[in-house]
Amino acid sequence: MGKNKVGDEVQNKQIIFRDYVIGYPRETDLYISTTSTIKLQVPQGSKTVLVKNMFLSCDPTMQFLMRKDESPLSRSYKYIPGSPINGFGVAKILDSGHPSFIAGDLVWGTTGWEEYSLILNPDKLYKIHHTDVSLSYYTGILGMPGITAYAGIFEVGSVKKGDCVFISAASGAVGQLAGQFAKLLGCYVVGSAGSQEKVDLLKNKLGFDDAFNYKEELDLDAALKRYFPEGIDFYFEQVGGKMLDAVLLNMKVHGRIAICGMISQYNIPHPEALENLLHIAFKRLTIKGFTYRDHHHLYPNLLETVLPYIRENKVVYVEDIVEGLEKGPEALVGLFSGRNFGKQIVKVASV
Amino acid sequence: MGKNKVGDEVQNKQIIFRDYVIGYPRETDLYISTTSTIKLQVPQGSKTVLVKNMFLSCDPTMQFLMRKDESPLSRSYKYIPGSPINGFGVAKILDSGHPSFIAGDLVWGTTGWEEYSLILNPDKLYKIHHTDVSLSYYTGILGMPGITAYAGIFEVGSVKKGDCVFISAASGAVGQLAGQFAKLLGCYVVGSAGSQEKVDLLKNKLGFDDAFNYKEELDLDAALKRYFPEGIDFYFEQVGGKMLDAVLLNMKVHGRIAICGMISQYNIPHPEALENLLHIAFKRLTIKGFTYRDHHHLYPNLLETVLPYIRENKVVYVEDIVEGLEKGPEALVGLFSGRNFGKQIVKVASV
Repeated sequence: MGKNKVGDEVQNKQIIFRDYVIGYPRETDLYISTTSTIKLQVPQGSKTVLVKNMFLSCDPTMQFLMRKDESPLSRSYKYIPGSPINGFGVAKILDSGHPSFIAGDLVWGTTGWEEYSLILNPDKLYKIHHTDVSLSYYTGILGMPGITAYAGIFEVGSVKKGDCVFISAASGAVGQLAGQFAKLLGCYVVGSAGSQEKVDLLKNKLGFDDAFNYKEELDLDAALKRYFPEGIDFYFEQVGGKMLDAVLLNMKVHGRIAICGMISQYNIPHPEALENLLHIAFKRLTIKGFTYRDHHHLYPNLLETVLPYIRENKVVYVEDIVEGLEKGPEALVGLFSGRNFGKQIVKVASV
Repeated sequence: MGKNKVGDEVQNKQIIFRDYVIGYPRETDLYISTTSTIKLQVPQGSKTVLVKNMFLSCDPTMQFLMRKDESPLSRSYKYIPGSPINGFGVAKILDSGHPSFIAGDLVWGTTGWEEYSLILNPDKLYKIHHTDVSLSYYTGILGMPGITAYAGIFEVGSVKKGDCVFISAASGAVGQLAGQFAKLLGCYVVGSAGSQEKVDLLKNKLGFDDAFNYKEELDLDAALKRYFPEGIDFYFEQVGGKMLDAVLLNMKVHGRIAICGMISQYNIPHPEALENLLHIAFKRLTIKGFTYRDHHHLYPNLLETVLPYIRENKVVYVEDIVEGLEKGPEALVGLFSGRNFGKQIVKVASV
């Protein structure tokens, strides 16, 4: 692609959304199109930017944009059948009509699942200033999952030294970072994940005090009592269902729960009944739902905190990168069943 | 009883707890005993007080203290089979070994369901200083439910002018007051209750903007959309189950929920499945469980706020008073199914 110049008309491989689905999206609900072309130039007078996509992020909530049934996410964000899907990504600007960007800038933000994208609203893009770290990190530790983990631990959860912290989906894009942040603060941190390999990762590489495979625990309540004999101060919730129900039994009085997702409940026809919601009142718990959306202002704090740790290898970030846009559908769908090992990313191109 | 003097040995009618039950307590799980006597004098050298009980409060959570199965309330608080039950009440001190109290003082706090009680830990009693209002109010608007309503609206919920506020169990001991507090702050306030008579009370006497009978709504989501076309800012939660599920669909982004009870879920073998917990994250809701326990410090504020309103008739408090200790079991058990109309109280004796 290096030979292409601004103004050239080139082939633009795309991942196209077939149609809305009921329940789990499958690989076949997406297909690769090689018939589109794109002119590597922004329309004259527009404030758009034309980018070459490098890394695409696979995020759990993308499934809502593919679903037929009503979902908590507004219809207006849903994918359009016959068009490429979109999501967070890292890209290089090839041409710009926007005063904030020039050709050659590296950015992260919402982009299309295709080789090149014309981005209509570049105001929402973040310019990448630090390139001594892996550019893929801007889909994860230095991108949206980073903001989510930072906000959950430092702001929403007000986590402090000595807290007993439990993190579900702990080896995922957000969880692995939330756990490391809590460790840096001086907490006791235990994570749950869905395989022995992930548990080993948490204990041996990511510095969690302990970890367990929730699929091998017949009794989640008993498992939590094993790791938190005195109860949980703060729970970083990403899975919902039976895990949340067991956690409610094990929270300390005045405990806090930050909820940024409930992936176990996204694709079942009827959510699991929670038996223990009464504990919210009896234990006077505080539960806060949050997403990165309300915490963009923390991005400078995230960079300031985490960049030195990355450079000193004091924070580790595990990525599961597949090579090539055509591997995108498999990687995305695999994420919904936890097939990924760390942050799931699709590499589309090098700089 | 007026003839009895300190030191007399008198008959002490009691409501005795038979044994732990599964599910709903019934009237027959309690019985009246007329065989006990009590000496109207504190044991020499003790710091106890001996009181004559006047009003006894019926509270929803008392059922947990009667239940065999494990409950969110610790076993140590449970009633003892063969002994009288206890709860909040208003009483007059007949004899005192405690430096803070003298004979003739009126107090409210935890006491026994009997004519006379020896209170071992008088430090937890509140002395009643304002007697120009009904003494029964110290089981309600000027007692624990008052603290709960005040804390929920002014502290936990941070309710402010213009908020759209929904209150379930709105004609009950706490709800009727929470709604009036929210109205005083300049909110739009809608309540739900379980009969047309209660709905009329809310609209015509308690100043709610609107109210509905949840038992007559086939679709609670539709009902809430009718009253809150733009969504709910603050929900004062006391019932749980299907109502909470419907409310989650109708909360505004960044809405707040204060939970001080979930009475609909207390006596069913398996709690109802909530389908909409995902909205906690997507709408970035804040949910806080609370009980009066953490808010005793607000009691002076409650008195300062509410006493002038009571005297000017700007706040109304509806009570359902049965006369005579022997009516206690029926009144208490009726509360669990919503048979009461306003705050349920048992009058044991006059001053």
